[in-house]
Amino acid sequence: MGAMLATLGFDYGTNSVRALLVNPTNGEELGSGVFNYPTGEAGVVYDAGDPHLARQNPADYLAGLSESLTLAFAKAKKTHPDFSLSNVIGIGVDTTGSSPIPVDAKNRALSSDPRFAGNKAALCWLWKDHTSSAEAAEITALARQIRPQYVAKCGNTYSSEWWWSKILHCARTSPEVFAAAWSWVELADWVPSVLAGVKNPREIRRGACAAGHKAFYSEDWGGLPDAEFLSKLDPRLAELLPHLYTKAYDASHKAGELCSEWAEKLGLEVGIPIAIGQFDVHYGAIGSGVREGVVVKAIGTSTCDCTVAGAGRKVADIPGICGIVNGSILPGCFGIEAGQSAVGDIFRWWVEVVLKGSGADHARLSAEIRGQKPGQSGLLALDWNNGNRTILVDQLLSGLLVGQTLRTTQAEIYRALIEATAFGARMIVERIAEYGVPVDTIVCCGGIAEKDPFLMQVYADVTGREMRVARSGQACALGAAVAAAVMAGKANGGHDSFADAMKAMTGVKDVVYKPIPENHAVYNRLFELYRKLHDAFGGVKTEDLSGIMKELIKIQKEQSAA
Amino acid sequence: MGAMLATLGFDYGTNSVRALLVNPTNGEELGSGVFNYPTGEAGVVYDAGDPHLARQNPADYLAGLSESLTLAFAKAKKTHPDFSLSNVIGIGVDTTGSSPIPVDAKNRALSSDPRFAGNKAALCWLWKDHTSSAEAAEITALARQIRPQYVAKCGNTYSSEWWWSKILHCARTSPEVFAAAWSWVELADWVPSVLAGVKNPREIRRGACAAGHKAFYSEDWGGLPDAEFLSKLDPRLAELLPHLYTKAYDASHKAGELCSEWAEKLGLEVGIPIAIGQFDVHYGAIGSGVREGVVVKAIGTSTCDCTVAGAGRKVADIPGICGIVNGSILPGCFGIEAGQSAVGDIFRWWVEVVLKGSGADHARLSAEIRGQKPGQSGLLALDWNNGNRTILVDQLLSGLLVGQTLRTTQAEIYRALIEATAFGARMIVERIAEYGVPVDTIVCCGGIAEKDPFLMQVYADVTGREMRVARSGQACALGAAVAAAVMAGKANGGHDSFADAMKAMTGVKDVVYKPIPENHAVYNRLFELYRKLHDAFGGVKTEDLSGIMKELIKIQKEQSAA
Repeated sequence: MGAMLATLGFDYGTNSVRALLVNPTNGEELGSGVFNYPTGEAGVVYDAGDPHLARQNPADYLAGLSESLTLAFAKAKKTHPDFSLSNVIGIGVDTTGSSPIPVDAKNRALSSDPRFAGNKAALCWLWKDHTSSAEAAEITALARQIRPQYVAKCGNTYSSEWWWSKILHCARTSPEVFAAAWSWVELADWVPSVLAGVKNPREIRRGACAAGHKAFYSEDWGGLPDAEFLSKLDPRLAELLPHLYTKAYDASHKAGELCSEWAEKLGLEVGIPIAIGQFDVHYGAIGSGVREGVVVKAIGTSTCDCTVAGAGRKVADIPGICGIVNGSILPGCFGIEAGQSAVGDIFRWWVEVVLKGSGADHARLSAEIRGQKPGQSGLLALDWNNGNRTILVDQLLSGLLVGQTLRTTQAEIYRALIEATAFGARMIVERIAEYGVPVDTIVCCGGIAEKDPFLMQVYADVTGREMRVARSGQACALGAAVAAAVMAGKANGGHDSFADAMKAMTGVKDVVYKPIPENHAVYNRLFELYRKLHDAFGGVKTEDLSGIMKELIKIQKEQSAA
Repeated sequence: MGAMLATLGFDYGTNSVRALLVNPTNGEELGSGVFNYPTGEAGVVYDAGDPHLARQNPADYLAGLSESLTLAFAKAKKTHPDFSLSNVIGIGVDTTGSSPIPVDAKNRALSSDPRFAGNKAALCWLWKDHTSSAEAAEITALARQIRPQYVAKCGNTYSSEWWWSKILHCARTSPEVFAAAWSWVELADWVPSVLAGVKNPREIRRGACAAGHKAFYSEDWGGLPDAEFLSKLDPRLAELLPHLYTKAYDASHKAGELCSEWAEKLGLEVGIPIAIGQFDVHYGAIGSGVREGVVVKAIGTSTCDCTVAGAGRKVADIPGICGIVNGSILPGCFGIEAGQSAVGDIFRWWVEVVLKGSGADHARLSAEIRGQKPGQSGLLALDWNNGNRTILVDQLLSGLLVGQTLRTTQAEIYRALIEATAFGARMIVERIAEYGVPVDTIVCCGGIAEKDPFLMQVYADVTGREMRVARSGQACALGAAVAAAVMAGKANGGHDSFADAMKAMTGVKDVVYKPIPENHAVYNRLFELYRKLHDAFGGVKTEDLSGIMKELIKIQKEQSAA
């Protein structure tokens, strides 16, 4: 038996980067290490004068490569003393996004140029930077008018979190940075390109995942948006076009091979393959075992829901579902992406902001209302404190709570917020299923799914579907390592297909959360009320809401007596 | 100059009775004393098995007479050493209601009969006892069908808080108590009748105030409901009718004169006049200087809003306004009564129930959000945590909060709840005004009005009307003392009319809360949104709510930038 091999996944989150070494034969996680970005607050550069600004220092991304790998390697050595970094056969990278970086003609981040020291526009524009909402509205309006096909793929609304909004905002507000930027690169494409030693932005292999609806890329219209469209937004965008790309690649392609400079820095072998970069949740879906019929739900501060469909056929647009992109998750399938704008953030808001100082914590509140039956509090909430990403695609929405009496407790409201996110999850799943995409099982990943069985049971009871938890606690990095194993190929100790690699390397935990029929029946009644509020306040249609409070009181009485 | 005279008001609240001695020439409050009812929890008897039950021990009411007067007298002596109880020229009584008491043929509370020791049905049925909601619904349905005029005066809905609901519930659930009760008497009528030595329930002078819509009494149909109507509810109610009364009296009539037994017990002169009993808020309106154009708003756990209109003419029914009763407040005028089911209770719920343990208190939360502009939090709430008394007359409603984000604070929600009660107050005032009853000024009484200038300013800004605070902190007892002064008459040191007595004895504090125009303008926009939610959830009409959240966000942005 030869030396144990490994693939390496780098997962770039909002606050830190994680390196994960994985045994490609069985998915064993040999060791992982986390590097917290040193710049800004928890890695994010804010601006006191503009609450919408959120940037990151690209230098942190590069510093984090060797720092996180060193930690991961040290852990792997503890359990596998013979293991050596020369046994790493491939690298995969996932990142947040859309997080575009302005680069110079040599693919160097503009922020490393001393001329732009302290200029926040020269940093990486983090996904959650919302400075460009006016530009997003402008792009939406123009596309609806002259290129409806562009926005049809993203629920008819383009977001301030995405590529063109941010670049256009930079052109408008920091023209000196825009002018100095030879090109722009998504973080997900930039890190692999740096590792591959690409010195010319035109030669970067860009991933279909980030290109997809976030940069309006589609083979349907031959790549990126046309120059006429971009000119109408700003002639400078059209001038940028030749510095970008004409083709994007799915994960069946490499981004390149490890260059000697970075091989030396990291202690890895020169020339090992680097997988195409993808957004974190897309590789997370792979690390959680996504396949047709399985929705992977990454539950964190917000959620991202991914599934795949249509191997060998085209999947129609689904109203309100932002991202239906060929090859954005698994090669050969349409990746379908949806999400809830806030989940963990809503619970954290209730416990840490509203109940500040009360000593309430998630565990105590859960324990307090675990014994209550569905509907017993009489409460119903909308999960829109941070807007609604799917299926309304509308940031200009807000939270709602109804049914409170003079006895309503903090724990009951906490539970109502959990249920609200479950109803939001059900809206997404039902919308996808309505359009012919099968949804049999939901596999969750992320800390909340692992730590909160009460929430998982509520989700099963609300959705009426089995809920599973991904085996890996670091599903995104694992997915990147899966892609690395496929790039390495079976002959080199990896795998020849994603199907094989996922079978060997990914899985779910044993625990199954099954819907409890009597709870599901009550939640069906509550979901009808949720849907009415959703449609009425979300602008879907005018609803008669005169029965809402009475029905909640009725359910409350029945469940209290039951 | 002769000895200083006084009139005496007894104010029976939910937890205690207060005695107040007042100089009738200038309204000076010579002394007051409070007696806390010893039975039950804070004076209320509850039932562990039925959260809707709330009763009181009539013995507490009688014990409280001398106890509270002794305390009041002791205080009066401190500042006026010459003062003697023989200088008291008249007595007035106000109480909670509708709080009916079953009595025997000699006007003794049935609960004092050893046969009924421990039987809660034999106690006084406190206004907030809600055990009879099924009976209230039954009475409402029957009246709508065959006697619509009965319910037209109470917003088309009869309440479980009122006379017939409670007596019918007693007949149904405690037939032995019902059978033993020779008659039933409102607490407001019973205390004066006891002081007057009335030993036959038929001879009790019942007040128009309590009789009014709460017992379906009106001169329009010759008094109480007819026997045919009552028989259809229960033949035993019709049999009770001859043991009740055929005429009710306004405050231009005495309930009687002080009998020797009670004169001796209290140290007062035999034969001094006792005013007709009225509900606390009605005498409170008098103590706060109610007149045409002035709405008196008693702000406590809930509110009661009173005004008078139509001296010499009939006031039409106003949809949703429960109580329009001739002589229920001031003789010769129609008394108009409205109310909000919870005000102070909503603030208390937020601070003491939801924020339990957080160290938040009303003062700190007020201080935190005092600097914010109207609409700056983006929040809007409905004040229905305890249902909506006026103008929807619907207990099966609940609270609602909309506009919360991930940054919404506990103090912002606290302010939104204050604003919600102000919007609720404005709905009432506007409804009354729409039907031709003038509302120029709002005079508030109660602890919240005295202690919370921030709330008072919000109310002024929301309603667009000047807010004043009643000079007396014990307006109800003062109103009873005013009625006592009128009963005594000018010849005996009192007054010959309510107008004269109120001019001499009542008034408002100097502070005036005037609407701030720019705040009022923003609150007008928020009130339109409140009205939409009100109408949509209250069943008034279906509303398009798709713009609510967006308009709140718009106002929030404008006010944050302002």
